[in-house]
Order: sequence, then structure tokens, then C-alpha cells
Amino acid sequence: MSSDRLIYLPLGGAGEIGMNCYVYGYGPEGAERFLLVDLGVTFPDMETTPGVDLILPDIAWLEERRDRLDGIVITHAHEDHVGAVGHLWSRLQAPVYARAFTGHIARLKMEEYGLAADILRIIEPYPQMATVGPFQIGFIPVSHSIPESSGIVIDTPAGRIVHTGDFKIDATPVVGEAFDPALWAEVAKPGVKALVCDSTNVFSEHAGRSEATVGPEIEKLVASAPGLVAATTFASNIARVKTLAEAGSRAGRSIVLLGRAMRRMVTAGIETGVLTDFPKVVSPEEAQDIPRGNLMLLTTGSQGEHRAATAQLSRGKYMGLTLKEGDLFLFSSKTIPGNERSVARIVNAFSEMGVDVVDDSSGLYHVSGHANRPDLMQMHTVVDPAVVIPMHGEHRHLRAHAKLAEDSGRRAVIAPNGTMIDLTGKVPKIAEFVETGRTYIDGSVQIGAMDGVVRDRLRMAMNGHVVVTVILDEEDAPLGEPWCEVMGLPPTGRSKAPLIDVLEADLDQFLGRADRKTRRDDDKLDEALRRVVRQTANDEIGKKPEVTVVVSRLS
Amino acid sequence: MSSDRLIYLPLGGAGEIGMNCYVYGYGPEGAERFLLVDLGVTFPDMETTPGVDLILPDIAWLEERRDRLDGIVITHAHEDHVGAVGHLWSRLQAPVYARAFTGHIARLKMEEYGLAADILRIIEPYPQMATVGPFQIGFIPVSHSIPESSGIVIDTPAGRIVHTGDFKIDATPVVGEAFDPALWAEVAKPGVKALVCDSTNVFSEHAGRSEATVGPEIEKLVASAPGLVAATTFASNIARVKTLAEAGSRAGRSIVLLGRAMRRMVTAGIETGVLTDFPKVVSPEEAQDIPRGNLMLLTTGSQGEHRAATAQLSRGKYMGLTLKEGDLFLFSSKTIPGNERSVARIVNAFSEMGVDVVDDSSGLYHVSGHANRPDLMQMHTVVDPAVVIPMHGEHRHLRAHAKLAEDSGRRAVIAPNGTMIDLTGKVPKIAEFVETGRTYIDGSVQIGAMDGVVRDRLRMAMNGHVVVTVILDEEDAPLGEPWCEVMGLPPTGRSKAPLIDVLEADLDQFLGRADRKTRRDDDKLDEALRRVVRQTANDEIGKKPEVTVVVSRLS
Repeated sequence: MSSDRLIYLPLGGAGEIGMNCYVYGYGPEGAERFLLVDLGVTFPDMETTPGVDLILPDIAWLEERRDRLDGIVITHAHEDHVGAVGHLWSRLQAPVYARAFTGHIARLKMEEYGLAADILRIIEPYPQMATVGPFQIGFIPVSHSIPESSGIVIDTPAGRIVHTGDFKIDATPVVGEAFDPALWAEVAKPGVKALVCDSTNVFSEHAGRSEATVGPEIEKLVASAPGLVAATTFASNIARVKTLAEAGSRAGRSIVLLGRAMRRMVTAGIETGVLTDFPKVVSPEEAQDIPRGNLMLLTTGSQGEHRAATAQLSRGKYMGLTLKEGDLFLFSSKTIPGNERSVARIVNAFSEMGVDVVDDSSGLYHVSGHANRPDLMQMHTVVDPAVVIPMHGEHRHLRAHAKLAEDSGRRAVIAPNGTMIDLTGKVPKIAEFVETGRTYIDGSVQIGAMDGVVRDRLRMAMNGHVVVTVILDEEDAPLGEPWCEVMGLPPTGRSKAPLIDVLEADLDQFLGRADRKTRRDDDKLDEALRRVVRQTANDEIGKKPEVTVVVSRLS
Repeated sequence: MSSDRLIYLPLGGAGEIGMNCYVYGYGPEGAERFLLVDLGVTFPDMETTPGVDLILPDIAWLEERRDRLDGIVITHAHEDHVGAVGHLWSRLQAPVYARAFTGHIARLKMEEYGLAADILRIIEPYPQMATVGPFQIGFIPVSHSIPESSGIVIDTPAGRIVHTGDFKIDATPVVGEAFDPALWAEVAKPGVKALVCDSTNVFSEHAGRSEATVGPEIEKLVASAPGLVAATTFASNIARVKTLAEAGSRAGRSIVLLGRAMRRMVTAGIETGVLTDFPKVVSPEEAQDIPRGNLMLLTTGSQGEHRAATAQLSRGKYMGLTLKEGDLFLFSSKTIPGNERSVARIVNAFSEMGVDVVDDSSGLYHVSGHANRPDLMQMHTVVDPAVVIPMHGEHRHLRAHAKLAEDSGRRAVIAPNGTMIDLTGKVPKIAEFVETGRTYIDGSVQIGAMDGVVRDRLRMAMNGHVVVTVILDEEDAPLGEPWCEVMGLPPTGRSKAPLIDVLEADLDQFLGRADRKTRRDDDKLDEALRRVVRQTANDEIGKKPEVTVVVSRLS
């Protein structure tokens, strides 16, 4: 009897929407060979991660075992699935498997890190399979909101796993492959041990709508607009970009692509053959000579990103183009939770200009790329696995998805990041808890989420920062008076005198009274001066600031 | 012919949802007598106002003219209408007019500032009117989501104005007065010059639902729950608090009020007579001895506030009470845009405990307190004013509301904060633009939004902070080496050496080369050292930090 086991271990994505990173393993315990599915990022915010540029899964566990990693499989080209490939590949160093369009995007990321192109293995869709260590893998085409999205079939000696990736059930996806129930049924036929399944839209009750339904509505809207029309969506949603461009083109408008991602994605679509018959595009310079009523701008920045084309247009001008009274701006997108304020800021700025803004609140101009509850149930039914393992969601999504499966009599396991599940036997069991976390790209450096760097930034942002400088002579006596610099604090408080003066007076008084033992001991002196500053500041302005004490000794 | 004019000037609320503050004036130009309607606050966020405790309208314009201010009228007791009365009253010093419940809450705020109770004038509802300078004012009862909400009728020699305050159209509001179309028609009968009208829900297309519709649904939910039930809503929504408590009580559960605001509001409701027949309440201590299935907790913190009862329960324990597997938590509330992440954090924490969370996504357990589009149109029709002036909304709300009025053939004026409208003649016209803004309560101090204090905090949060200390002797030569302290920056970068060491080495090298002219000039030296730090940090870690330079001269 074999002592080999089959394991599943999410390092990211099972505890958040974003940062997907799932490990599969097969082999003797402690000597399994590994397969990684997806290596994505998530995005920082001012509330929890100020100054951070990008958030990656902490892959330390896998890095320590990278000699046993046989391959990295990327399901599709969204940032939360492929975004960390450039940043983290050199710490993992295994071949990357993807379909052509995804590979095209992955290659761009690798080139930024000077990685060789031969890392990449472009795979044709199922029924073609590739051997990766003890695994046989295949890419099952599925509809989503980017071309060539795929579920992954993973065959092991212990049975077949189906990992859905992100998906929706769409028979008419405009660009790319429709959801094909017959194909998925064929994959399921030999019996599936576990369905590891997207949970993003588990709280949406109604059946998902097809991408094809938005086209006619967008066409009507664009055709009836008198002035310039601008529209934003995720650039990677190439079907939507095409729909928007065609609506503009049919209304006699010239199409202008604004923003690097928009141009790059259209190029990627054309070069890989997934995007055909895209209307003719004019440059922003050419657009200057075209009447406003004959223009349609497609812009990046649907989530309110400060430096993207949409935000720049809302602040005035982008590439020489401006919006004005009577123009129309369409958000053909959903605002991701957390981005509401940034998007509202833009809408208000357009409102002040007199631009009419249309968003997805009517449900007419946007559809989601994820499977809603009824669609998830359809997937469960088609694949009919021994166990459903919800992935890609916050804990509340994973739990609701597990309940959904259980309500129709299926077995389900909630496995948040770090939960290693042993799938070998008839009943899945928790094998181990592994430490997981987040790595921040901060400027050009990778730092751990728990390193305290960001905690210090948040503290300064909440409390302000006071710097105290004291110079002591050879006898540990103060040379001159202590000196304060403050940053991020009100200039005056209760006593109406400058805060700095009050702080310096109290510090001076303290030093005058302090015994030599305190003055001689760096730690004691630091602690005592810090306490004086915090107490005086609290009296004056009702805040206890962060304090840095610099003691210079002339000795 | 009179040269007196009638003016309207929003200082807050017409450019945001929150911070309501509207000035009306009547009299000769430049010598008008003033009436202020509402004096509210809005709330800070980490993204734009870290460390700030509360945001108030900047009332400098009115303060300069406070000898002409005859009264402050408060429409209802929500924080965004009454919240700044304590903080700002001493800068305005005019009598405060309110109905009893609102007055009760206003008094608590004033007591915190040691203000005398005789400032407050409690007014009975319309048809009673009060004379305030050249104005006759009356409180028109209206349904909203707090007791005794009122529109204000303002009579002036130049005509009648109706200021709606916040409102919804609800015939069965559970607690307090229903919307009474006959009463509003009576107020409108003499002819209304301007309807100054709530815009909050202008983007909600369907007619509003009555508070009475949520009761039966909540009862069904609570009755079917096996374990402990906890529910949160705004404490000031006394109708909802009562509905929740009654649902619990009917299901045989003892009611526990958790959080100061919850206890205070129920007390205020009972003391002012607006809340009757409230079920018996037990203390958290008494609750310890009651079986979980017989308990219902009503908690503060529906918006995910970190220190409120809901958040504390999600982190473990509050007043000795805990939630666990099989319990139910109900958000009988809407998440205000911007609070999604905080609320999701709590829901995920409950999910990890195995607590079932129900929110308003089904539409069953919460209704809004504001008038939706059809309700706004009904208000326009009932009052039939010469002009509609949308208030209480971001610019996009004001604009959509103006369009709504114009679409049914009415005149409308968009008047964002600072826009003074002259309402004297047949056609309203813009008289002037007045500078407005925001004041922050920061600890115990009031600071201006533009003072740079918060900007510095945001910069430190984004970029980190480096402090450079240099000691120069009598000849302006460095005494020892320069010294760096860093806060909020990665410890090492490109060269793998400690960032501080690299910075200090580069600073030392710079100082060794600097000519005496630079070393002697504080500004030049400061600027030069700052540049060295920013450039070295950028090379090492790809970030340009904030820099504070401290130069000590022994002279």
C-alpha cells in the first residue's frame, strides 16, 4: 500500500479576494512534489498599508521546499493570479505553465525582472495534458472577464482534482470561449476527488448575466449621447473593451485608447489572436482634430486610481483631451469594495464640470465575471466532486460557499490560508497549519507585513512625530537646551504658546532636575524624555505623539 | 421699494453627506440678520484625515458676523446635524431652537462644554411658530430615522422657505410622527419661494419602504434562531431599536443594550416620551445567568467602529459576553460608503467563530431613512415651490436632484458650499462665493483642514521619516559623525547593509566635502543634507522619505 499523500494548501486567496496562491502536493509525507496554481498580488490601501506599492503572498514555506516544486500554473492573466510572477519567480525557480494570452502577460512581467523567456511553457487547452512531476495537468477553457481563463484539471495517482480558477457561466462571452457544460462533464466523468472552487460572488443570489447582454445597452447609450463619450472598464476585460469600441464605432465615433494598460491589453489581444476585428483606433493627437461628438475615449482607472487616465480627466486634462458640460462618462465596471470614496471623488469632479456620469447601478452596463450562487450550484452539479473546497474569498465567502454545498448534500471543507488538507483518503482531513502572511513591495524592497515598518507609519499618521535632540558634555550635563522638531502636530494648544516652546521648556526643566544616573544611562534618559514629551503634548493638544529621542554625547 | 434681500448660503452639507450647516439671511445687503439651520459634523477616515477625531464645518464667515446671528435651529438629533453644537457654540453664541428630543441630545453636547442650559429653546411643532430676528420659524414633523425629525418653515418678508431637513415619506414609522401630506400641503398653501431639499437618496430609483415593513421580517428571523441573537443598528434609530427589542421579547429573549450610545438613546427616548412600551432590559451581568437561546443583544457599531460593542464582540468579548458557533448576528443597517472594509473585517471575524451573519443585502432587515427619487418628486409636488435647491449631498447628488426637478418642469439651482443665493426676486441668482472649508477636532485642538498638519501626517505615512542630527563646532566643522534615526522605513535595501549605516556614511562623506559657506548657512545645509538622504534612500529602497534635519551648533 502506498504511503503517498495528496495535499492542498492555500498560501493566499483563501482569506481575501486577491493574492491567489494554491499549493498542491503529492508524494510521501514530508517529501511531496509540489505544483503551485497561481501567483497573484493584492492592492494596498491607505487605511492599513500606507506607502506600500503592492502586496504579495508570503511564500516562505514553499521557498524552503522549492527543490520539490515542479511547476507554477497560471489560470488567467488577472493581477490577482499572475501579478507576483515577476516579483517572486526567482525565489521559486520552477517552470511556468500557461495558455498563450496569459503567457503573453506573464512574459511582460518576467521581462521587467530580466528573467529568461524559456521559463514559460505555453500549453494548449484540454484535452492536451502536460506532465509536471507526479501531476498531469490540463487547462479547461472557461468564461470569465479576461481571455483564455481556465480551470485546471490535476490528475494524481490519488485521483483527479478540478481547480476552477475564476469563472462565470456564460454561453455568449463576446470574446473567448463560452462555458461548455459538455466539456466540463467530460472532465468530471472519471470522478473528481475535490472541486476547488471560486467563491467571489457567493453572496449574489440571481443567476449571472452574459457579457453579450451589455452590448446592446451600451450601444443605445452611446448612440444617444450628443457630446464626447468616455468609458472606463478593466483593460483586461477585452470583451468589454471590444463591446465599448464597437458601440462607439457604430455611432460614427473614432476610438481613442487612454492609459498604458488599455493599449497594452488591446495589443496583447491582437497579437495572441484572441481579439479580432477591433475598430480602428486614433491617437490622442489625432483626436484633437476630430469633433467632440465623433469621439469615444476608452480609459483606464475604473477603480478611481489616482494616476490613471480617468482620474486625470476628472482633474482636467489627459494627453491634451478634456471633458466638459454635456459630455458623457460611463463606468462600465463595478466599484470594488474599498474604492468607493476614490470613485465618488471622480464622479463629483465630473459633476462639477457638468459631465453626465452613468454607472452600473442600473445593472445595464456591466456584468460580473464571477459565478453567482445558482452558477456555483451548477458547477458543483456538473463536476459532482467528493468534496467542495471553496477558495478565492474572504472567510465569510468561504463559509457561505461551504454552506451552499452542504445544503445540497455535498461534503465541503473550509480551508483558509495555511490550512493543509490531506485529500488522500475517502474523507478529507486537516493535516497541518502552516504559517502564512503577506509580503509588501515597498519602493524597491520586499518587507514582511509584520516587520513593524508599516505599523510605525500608521502610528506617525495617527499621532504625529516629535524629535527631541539633547547634547550632553563629558560630565553628562546638558550642553545648551533640548531641541524639539514636530511633524504632523498642531502648532499650538491649550496654553496658546507654540507647542515646541512648551515641549522644550518642560524638557529643559526635566533635564535640570534629572540626576546624573539618569543622564548617564541612554535607555533611561530616552524613556524619561519620551515620557515628558507625551505627557506635555497630551496636556497641550490632547494627543500622545510618537517620539524619537536623539542624545549626542561629547565624549 | 425695500432694498432688503433674502439669502441662502450653505457652509456645509452641500458638497458632502454630513456636516450640515445652512445660513439664511434677511435684511439690507451686508447687514442681513442671520438664521443658522443645523450645525453638524462629519467623520474622519484614515485615507484623508488620519489621527483626526471629528470634522466640523469652517464657520469663520458666520463667526465674523455673529452679532447678526439671531438663532441656530436644529432639525433633528443626528450627529451630522447637531454634532458640532457643543464644539462651535461659543464661537457663535446665539440661542438654539429645537424640539424636545433633539434638545435633549443637544443639551448633552453643550454640557460637555459647560454651556448653560438657557441657551436652548424647546419649540412645539407647527403650527406653533417662533420669532427669530426677522424670521418666523416652525418645525414641521416629518418621518426619518430618529424621533422628532422636522422640516423647517422659514417665513420672511420676502416670502416663505421650506427646508426639509433629512426626511423620508413614511406613513407608518413605528416610533414618532408619520409623514402627513395634508400638513405639508397646508404649509405650502401660501406659496413657497424655495424648497431646500435633502438629496441623499436621489440615486435610489424605487419608492422608499416603511419602517413598519422590517418588523415582521426581523421577528421571523429572531424567532427561528436557535442560539444567541445579537443585532446592531444606529442607536439613534429608536424605531429600529424598538422593533429589534420587541422581536427579541416576543421570542422569549431578554434584551441587553451594549454600548454607551445604545443606552443613552433609549434613555433619551423614554425621558422625552417618544419611546413607550420598551421591553424590559437586563444588564450584561444579569445576562451571564440566562441561557444563550434566551438572549438578544442590541449593540452599537453598525459601521464597524473599532471600539464599539460590535467590533469588540468580533474580537472576543464585551462586558463578559461572547458569541460562538451557532449564534446569529444581524446588521439591521446599511454600510455607509467608505466603511465597507471595517464592516467586512467584523463579518469575517464572526465567520471564523462560526457565527451566522445576516445583513441588509436581502432588503428585508433594513430600510433607509431618506427619500428616494419618487419620494423626492412627491415632496416637490406637495410643496410646489418656485425653486428647488438641493442640499445634503455630494455634488453628484445635488446635480442629479436638480435634474430631477428640472425634468418635471421646475426651476432648480445647484448651490454647493459657499454659494450665496439671492432669493429676493422672481428668479434666484448667485450673489457671491464665500470661502468655506473644514475644521478638524484633533485631540483637544481645532485645526484647519489646510493648515498642513494632516498633510504632514499623510506624507510620513506614505514615505516614512528620517531624522538627521549634525553637531558643528565653533568653526562650523562637524563634531563626530552625522546621526540618523528612521521611522517607517525598511531596515535594509539594495546594498544589504543597514539603511541607517548607508545614510550616515553618505551624509558623512557629504559633510567632509562641503565648503564652509554651506556648513555655515542653516538653510543651505538643511537643504543639502535633505537631498543626500532622499537620494541615498531612493537608491537603496526606492523611496524618498520625509526628512527632518537638526543642526546643533556649539557657539
